[in-house]
Amino acid sequence: MSRVDEILSWYDSDAPGVQRNLRWILESGKLAGTGKLVLLPVDQGFEHGPTSSFGPNPAAYDPHYHFRLAIDAGCSAYAAPLGSLQAGAREFAGQIPTILKLNSSDSLFSGDDPKPAVTGSVSEALRLGCAAVGFTIYPGSAARNEMYAELREIAEQARAVGLAVVGWSYPQGSALSSAGETALDIVAYAAQIAAQLGAHIIKVKPPSAHIERADALAVFEEQSVPIDTLEDRVRHVVQSAFNGRRIVIFSGGATKSSEEVLSEITSLAAGGAFGSILGRNTFQRPRDEAIALLDAVMQTYRRAA
Amino acid sequence: MSRVDEILSWYDSDAPGVQRNLRWILESGKLAGTGKLVLLPVDQGFEHGPTSSFGPNPAAYDPHYHFRLAIDAGCSAYAAPLGSLQAGAREFAGQIPTILKLNSSDSLFSGDDPKPAVTGSVSEALRLGCAAVGFTIYPGSAARNEMYAELREIAEQARAVGLAVVGWSYPQGSALSSAGETALDIVAYAAQIAAQLGAHIIKVKPPSAHIERADALAVFEEQSVPIDTLEDRVRHVVQSAFNGRRIVIFSGGATKSSEEVLSEITSLAAGGAFGSILGRNTFQRPRDEAIALLDAVMQTYRRAA
Amino acid sequence: MSRVDEILSWYDSDAPGVQRNLRWILESGKLAGTGKLVLLPVDQGFEHGPTSSFGPNPAAYDPHYHFRLAIDAGCSAYAAPLGSLQAGAREFAGQIPTILKLNSSDSLFSGDDPKPAVTGSVSEALRLGCAAVGFTIYPGSAARNEMYAELREIAEQARAVGLAVVGWSYPQGSALSSAGETALDIVAYAAQIAAQLGAHIIKVKPPSAHIERADALAVFEEQSVPIDTLEDRVRHVVQSAFNGRRIVIFSGGATKSSEEVLSEITSLAAGGAFGSILGRNTFQRPRDEAIALLDAVMQTYRRAA
Amino acid sequence: MSRVDEILSWYDSDAPGVQRNLRWILESGKLAGTGKLVLLPVDQGFEHGPTSSFGPNPAAYDPHYHFRLAIDAGCSAYAAPLGSLQAGAREFAGQIPTILKLNSSDSLFSGDDPKPAVTGSVSEALRLGCAAVGFTIYPGSAARNEMYAELREIAEQARAVGLAVVGWSYPQGSALSSAGETALDIVAYAAQIAAQLGAHIIKVKPPSAHIERADALAVFEEQSVPIDTLEDRVRHVVQSAFNGRRIVIFSGGATKSSEEVLSEITSLAAGGAFGSILGRNTFQRPRDEAIALLDAVMQTYRRAA
Amino acid sequence: MSRVDEILSWYDSDAPGVQRNLRWILESGKLAGTGKLVLLPVDQGFEHGPTSSFGPNPAAYDPHYHFRLAIDAGCSAYAAPLGSLQAGAREFAGQIPTILKLNSSDSLFSGDDPKPAVTGSVSEALRLGCAAVGFTIYPGSAARNEMYAELREIAEQARAVGLAVVGWSYPQGSALSSAGETALDIVAYAAQIAAQLGAHIIKVKPPSAHIERADALAVFEEQSVPIDTLEDRVRHVVQSAFNGRRIVIFSGGATKSSEEVLSEITSLAAGGAFGSILGRNTFQRPRDEAIALLDAVMQTYRRAA
Repeated sequence: MSRVDEILSWYDSDAPGVQRNLRWILESGKLAGTGKLVLLPVDQGFEHGPTSSFGPNPAAYDPHYHFRLAIDAGCSAYAAPLGSLQAGAREFAGQIPTILKLNSSDSLFSGDDPKPAVTGSVSEALRLGCAAVGFTIYPGSAARNEMYAELREIAEQARAVGLAVVGWSYPQGSALSSAGETALDIVAYAAQIAAQLGAHIIKVKPPSAHIERADALAVFEEQSVPIDTLEDRVRHVVQSAFNGRRIVIFSGGATKSSEEVLSEITSLAAGGAFGSILGRNTFQRPRDEAIALLDAVMQTYRRAA
Repeated sequence: MSRVDEILSWYDSDAPGVQRNLRWILESGKLAGTGKLVLLPVDQGFEHGPTSSFGPNPAAYDPHYHFRLAIDAGCSAYAAPLGSLQAGAREFAGQIPTILKLNSSDSLFSGDDPKPAVTGSVSEALRLGCAAVGFTIYPGSAARNEMYAELREIAEQARAVGLAVVGWSYPQGSALSSAGETALDIVAYAAQIAAQLGAHIIKVKPPSAHIERADALAVFEEQSVPIDTLEDRVRHVVQSAFNGRRIVIFSGGATKSSEEVLSEITSLAAGGAFGSILGRNTFQRPRDEAIALLDAVMQTYRRAA
Repeated sequence: MSRVDEILSWYDSDAPGVQRNLRWILESGKLAGTGKLVLLPVDQGFEHGPTSSFGPNPAAYDPHYHFRLAIDAGCSAYAAPLGSLQAGAREFAGQIPTILKLNSSDSLFSGDDPKPAVTGSVSEALRLGCAAVGFTIYPGSAARNEMYAELREIAEQARAVGLAVVGWSYPQGSALSSAGETALDIVAYAAQIAAQLGAHIIKVKPPSAHIERADALAVFEEQSVPIDTLEDRVRHVVQSAFNGRRIVIFSGGATKSSEEVLSEITSLAAGGAFGSILGRNTFQRPRDEAIALLDAVMQTYRRAA
Repeated sequence: MSRVDEILSWYDSDAPGVQRNLRWILESGKLAGTGKLVLLPVDQGFEHGPTSSFGPNPAAYDPHYHFRLAIDAGCSAYAAPLGSLQAGAREFAGQIPTILKLNSSDSLFSGDDPKPAVTGSVSEALRLGCAAVGFTIYPGSAARNEMYAELREIAEQARAVGLAVVGWSYPQGSALSSAGETALDIVAYAAQIAAQLGAHIIKVKPPSAHIERADALAVFEEQSVPIDTLEDRVRHVVQSAFNGRRIVIFSGGATKSSEEVLSEITSLAAGGAFGSILGRNTFQRPRDEAIALLDAVMQTYRRAA
Repeated sequence: MSRVDEILSWYDSDAPGVQRNLRWILESGKLAGTGKLVLLPVDQGFEHGPTSSFGPNPAAYDPHYHFRLAIDAGCSAYAAPLGSLQAGAREFAGQIPTILKLNSSDSLFSGDDPKPAVTGSVSEALRLGCAAVGFTIYPGSAARNEMYAELREIAEQARAVGLAVVGWSYPQGSALSSAGETALDIVAYAAQIAAQLGAHIIKVKPPSAHIERADALAVFEEQSVPIDTLEDRVRHVVQSAFNGRRIVIFSGGATKSSEEVLSEITSLAAGGAFGSILGRNTFQRPRDEAIALLDAVMQTYRRAA
């Protein structure tokens, strides 16, 4: 059994249409067939504003730029909100799997307990020929339950029409300290919640060595769970998503040097990450640099496959 | 390829019905075929009250006055809430493209976080023979997410029946300073949000030189983005709406002298604005003056086409 | 063209069924054919309680009393909530146009920001043979947007089945001073809002000489709009409802002497009011007195027609 | 009142959206504003087969050819079944009013009592940006009642969303002699039936001098109705469609010489026909000839306007 | 523009989802990217019975056999009824584009006027992860209109969710002679009908030199259309499907020798066929022979691309 078939076997309660679309993602781009994946997400125009997102590389103001970048770099899929996807859906129809983000937050209003607006629908994803829908939840927010319920319902709708579901699970809210947002135990918990809500692919942030909750700390110590290195911690997060039976990928976060990106990816890959989702670290670089960096990232994952 | 065909090609993920209606707008009035447009919006009776809106030119109390003004001045379309449109929809059926505003705020209640009432529907727009529906969002308001979700759903309904969608995107709310409402970075962000939610035509206010957010300021400085003149700033706003792949038009704001209006329009046109939407600056003037001013505005845009 | 035909021509975007029902009202009772109308509304049992509403004239506890009164007095229509209408709908079917009030407030709970309960439906109005539905909005209330959206949706439903819509537009809520509730500019604004939401007949309170908003005051002064007499002020309110293209009628308010009522009616009629809607001032009087007063009111309007 | 406004006034029980679309047709092409119209219909590929329809002018195999021909010749609208319209709907969106034929017959099966298949829908017409839907009925067929019921339902759906309805009314079936299919009384009857079923525009064949039914013959004789010339007969058909209150247009039939076409058109125009719908006589000719012939036809109608 | 992009441009009135699925087919298998396609259809178990269909090669009783054959031979897609597809949909999910046949005829009942049973749905196609739905019509059957209406409705549903539509158009019925079923004019007509009903891909039988209808014969003679060779005739059929703007493929028919198959394919390819759909000629052969034959067929098409 190929690695892709093995991964798809974890989703065997879902309809074949879901597996067709998961396979599309797993068989696209330079990592096709490896069971690893690297996604290009471009929701930063909505999340952080166009100026700070695209200003560093003005070609990126154009939605076609990102489709082209994702295709040329050999990404496994391209994820974006409705407007961006729609601006290139016909031109690039079927050239790369697309993921329609169904909710988004903007930065013009912020509170302690974030909740994104619903900005897309499953029927739009079908119309636009997407492979999957994406949805963000903020465990730790006072508004978490509404988000969980929304994700669950969207996941049910998506599965019924054969679309895969990608869950962005980012702990944040009044219940968490700032360090807690990336604490190992919390990131692991966030991955578990997304898995429970029906996400097929789960996106989390790389976990720090901070432990937010005493009960988790006690277990790590009692069981002598290694958590010192990022590789160790990634292993725990992947384990927390159904013992590796769900595809868990890691976000790249704010812009940093290529060395930093690759160093982190090396640890993620070593820890068993299924891949990465890199936005600002790619499209805010000049195109050639971005493609070179993505190629190095993909080679790293390929070696770990 | 004509300029109108080029503009329509940006909306190629939409059904032909949407393009028929966008073409109707782009091929109507004195700017027909130029790719520029000037709209007459009359929602001020609802937004600011009849007395202060129509008192300065009492003929404007009559809804027919505005249809006639828009037609005689050669506007590209006329936008109004349900009642106003309905009052002339039969008399002027098909004589000018109409845009049904689907939400409106009145001024009898105000809070820090505005949210308009839903006051129309897509099916009413079909019944009344409209070319498009309009919807206002207030980025920066605590109620933004409800507005975003409403606009998204309306846009999906409208596209399904071939209507175009015009988004009024006016940053306002407890998260923004008063200066921030027209700050360049915020107006650019507002244009991006409307584009992401599926608006085909985006209406924003002319941006001031104020920069509200530190991250945007840093980008402007690092990238040496010119922002000193209105022309510069308009260019950034248009760029922020999918690098010019969306029609972005600018509101005229409160009544001012004809010289001030034309001076502003000259800058807007030079910066690449697709057009203007002028309400109080037209219907609060005597009819002859209004038509003369609109003609001068249109000539300005025509020269820039 | 008769006056009734002229009035109906203002509603020419509506289906013929709506015009049938408007004509029924305009051709009923003693004012038939004049373009003026006097309605009997009896929603006070719900709004103020039975004891204070009907105690002064115990015959009025009986719903049939009001049907009979409206018919015998030659009223243009009779308006009431579901229960009252239903109690006489068969007995008096087709004898007088009826208006089903679709929302009502009771006085057992009150807050700064009133919102009525929805207490009827368009389908009930059809079942009961009504000519129209009625709906109350409170501009100035924090709950205004929900009411506006409800009225809009009800108006769409009503138009689709050929029923006319009567909007009770009573400014009230935490955003308004007590004097502001009947301020000229506010009443004019309330009439405009109801017109925009699709009401065919608009009911407001007689406006006082108070001006609530500075922007309106400035316009009155700049334009030298006469506002000293009730007649002047009524003229402005009618103008504010699409320059007289909507039927605007005025409520009678709390019980007062016949002289006071007639004096007020004389001013309303002189100012161009389309009619009155008189509840407590009629049914709280002995029947003969009520009929005499209504006759005098109708004669006043007839003279102004 | 312009002639177009006069014509639209006949449809004043319909919603403004219907009138918008009727106006679009009446204000398009070389006959814009005259109240006359010439349509290009291309359903012969379905009705008679591609070989015999397009073989005489092979360029006509291409659906774009017909869009271009209709536009370049200045036709008022272009009518075709779903596939043909869809093949050019985006390319030519909004450049000419289109009419989606919602039913079609093929010639591979024929019986005494024809009934077309339903091959389109009102929602497709909206999606494709059409001005109208078209529907064929065969009065005289044993299957007439199903067709009448289908047309009625489609007309109701179309009106609700603001689309106009074009009725092809072609008497045919076991109840009629071959001569009866174009008999004056039968064509007049067919026009009446289409009008009764809600068609806004009615297409019939030019009537012959044959009279099929004795009762009609008796009336023509008793009332001395002139029926000798085609002009006389057309006058009777137009009269039979609500005394001229419905737009009645005449088909061109099988290919004939330009002289024959123009001679017939001259009679049609003299008799008060609102226009013609010419298919095989245009697209089976070389393009230049077709445009020249259509121009002569339009000039004939223009002179009669 | 690549050949695939050129082909997709013919379907530009459809949503991007349709184009994604058409591209999937056009980019799969050994003919990926050539604009040519070879499909494996296995509906013979239903159409002709298992014994006569699968008996010659008993391995073919197993539905997995056909998935595997289609994949290993490098077919562009695999088409089958619900049961067959469902039997392998998970195992082979996403490995090859699948087409769900939505109607099928069995051979246990036959009449002069065939009509297949509806045996699948668009929602099943989504659930199973299909690229397209397939539907058979029998022009010439007394039941044709029901089939046309069914195909039309299925095509509307499919387009709305981004699925492509494959039309099997097989003239058959009491209105046609046996020779007429494959007569050139009739096959061309059948292709036209499928195109008009909204099929994206049209499957017909190779046309014989017989001409069924006098009107077509007259045109062939008058226009000197070459029809002597299969290549000539295929050219006419492709022309009849919107002048080549629709993908037309040809069935292989009953089992014959490899030489006969390849000879026919050579003519089809020379005449501009977009490809073939070969069932009995492949799965009734031993697997190795079938793969070798399919390879030769694909090479033939590749040389013609």
